[in-house]
Amino acid sequence: MSTIFSKIITGEIPCYKIAETESCFAFLDINPLAKGHTLVVPKKEVNDYFNLDTQLFTELNILSKKVAKAIKQTMPCERVGVAVIGLEVPHAHIHLIPINNIRDIDFSRPKLDLPQAEMQEIANTISSNI
Amino acid sequence: MSTIFSKIITGEIPCYKIAETESCFAFLDINPLAKGHTLVVPKKEVNDYFNLDTQLFTELNILSKKVAKAIKQTMPCERVGVAVIGLEVPHAHIHLIPINNIRDIDFSRPKLDLPQAEMQEIANTISSNI
Repeated sequence: MSTIFSKIITGEIPCYKIAETESCFAFLDINPLAKGHTLVVPKKEVNDYFNLDTQLFTELNILSKKVAKAIKQTMPCERVGVAVIGLEVPHAHIHLIPINNIRDIDFSRPKLDLPQAEMQEIANTISSNI
Repeated sequence: MSTIFSKIITGEIPCYKIAETESCFAFLDINPLAKGHTLVVPKKEVNDYFNLDTQLFTELNILSKKVAKAIKQTMPCERVGVAVIGLEVPHAHIHLIPINNIRDIDFSRPKLDLPQAEMQEIANTISSNI
């Protein structure tokens, strides 16, 4: 069965797309910890991030670097934090989260529920800054 | 002035070393969130992780991948979580943390204070598993 991320990549489930390469895909987290919270995933379904082969692992990280720079340019923040957890969706993914203090990257905090128009505008702006 | 991580790399400050490459260095976090919590840093002092040049960024991530696999082999855990925050020490670093649930990667939790002998044994075992 396809993971939810595979369905997002194929367009079966809609998303706020940020960027795409031959092997990887980036889109806004639908339940963001902060405005601009983005997920970067390999197109290939691999459960554990550290089980990605080195080439795909590197391509995923290089896309994350490009996207993170565009997030920083778009959303004022001290840093773009990185988290890879992988306890929920069995498809490796990197969280990129604009942060100003350590609490901003606490996954137990309530998530934001932003209007669609605002999510789309954020995605468009990050995307155009890549 | 050298960062605390540069002093660890040169040996001016002692550490529980895990691994070293020409460009990067890995050692146990002295205030771990979990047993096996490791920091992976570039030898070059660069403040923001995403400002590392692509080659060094890639070398740092590839060492993290190798160390994470050794951590998983050493400390029973569901995943090795990754965090890059960068609000405290102005020297880019990747946290690798054995996790079983989302709370295990919450940086506001109290840190562990393990006996030196146990820290050294953990470091030796992770290192030997690389």
